[in-house]
Amino acid sequence: MAGPQGEIETLIGLMARLPGLGPRSARRAVLHLLKKRDLLMAPLAAAMARTAATTRDCAICGNLGSDELCGICTDPKRSTGEICVVEDVADLWALEQSGAFRGRYHVLGGTLSPLDAVGPDDLRIPDLVARVIDTSTTEVILALPATVDGQTTAHYLADALAPTGVAVSSLAQGVPVGGELDYLDEGTITAALRARRRF
Amino acid sequence: MAGPQGEIETLIGLMARLPGLGPRSARRAVLHLLKKRDLLMAPLAAAMARTAATTRDCAICGNLGSDELCGICTDPKRSTGEICVVEDVADLWALEQSGAFRGRYHVLGGTLSPLDAVGPDDLRIPDLVARVIDTSTTEVILALPATVDGQTTAHYLADALAPTGVAVSSLAQGVPVGGELDYLDEGTITAALRARRRF
Repeated sequence: MAGPQGEIETLIGLMARLPGLGPRSARRAVLHLLKKRDLLMAPLAAAMARTAATTRDCAICGNLGSDELCGICTDPKRSTGEICVVEDVADLWALEQSGAFRGRYHVLGGTLSPLDAVGPDDLRIPDLVARVIDTSTTEVILALPATVDGQTTAHYLADALAPTGVAVSSLAQGVPVGGELDYLDEGTITAALRARRRF
Repeated sequence: MAGPQGEIETLIGLMARLPGLGPRSARRAVLHLLKKRDLLMAPLAAAMARTAATTRDCAICGNLGSDELCGICTDPKRSTGEICVVEDVADLWALEQSGAFRGRYHVLGGTLSPLDAVGPDDLRIPDLVARVIDTSTTEVILALPATVDGQTTAHYLADALAPTGVAVSSLAQGVPVGGELDYLDEGTITAALRARRRF
């Protein structure tokens, strides 16, 4: 017998599978929980069980919510004409926190990646094309990561959506707000310079 | 409404209270869980609830276990003559992983710290003195951190145990100054334990 036993060891093993936690930090986290069994551990376990049982993928956009359709897809105040395409729910949350977009979303669930054998049918791409054809969509905004896979996916989507005649745009590339030129990579500086605007 | 809602937000808030996780990494961890609701989230919630309900502090040594007495205090193969005093259960686990100690433990639950108003009665120090008097203890090994508070606590314990006539030793130098036992490799812990000296 070495270190923690039985159930505690099982718990550490499960915690270590979370992103950002290794075996050692999972052990630290579990020990912290064990010290606060009533104040933190029991409420956390209950919240986790409840959320696991009630959370569903939105049938329209793929966002997470507690009903068949998410709070954004059922919000009558949000424009139905614009669909913002994101890789992941985390990106949707980031865009929502900016408060700058008042349309609907479409969560792809990843990006095309030939190396990882991720093709169009592994993502929600057919759903997106069908959604654009079936609804009164005027613009699809591609908010995909500025990585090789992200940009490959953006090009693929632009081609796939071309027959529908919908306007397709993508997020501007440039200098981040508060960014020092000195610390930016050459690719960003080149993109910002190419897309320069009259002052 | 910005970002995640309701129950998911509650869950992120609770996760962010774990050591090593901030608001952003808690959100990433929760999103990962939400993607693996059946394979990871539900089992983790169940393991956490079960462990929270069944884990108890050992009535003798303060170690964590599922019964009134922990697996080490009830193990007949372990020497009752030697008590190894540690700050925390994490340190006990680290010592157990080295496999170098076959006696019993005493978990103080902290170190004396005048700045944080932690005095002898806030720790399991009276319990330790009573335990040494009541049982056939031949040696108390102080395995406390090589920090100012840890060494202050060691000196205090040596004084408190002096009237009992028990031999008091401490881990050998070899523990890096300012280092926490929890973060040491097993070889160092074994070497320090073997080279323990009379206090």
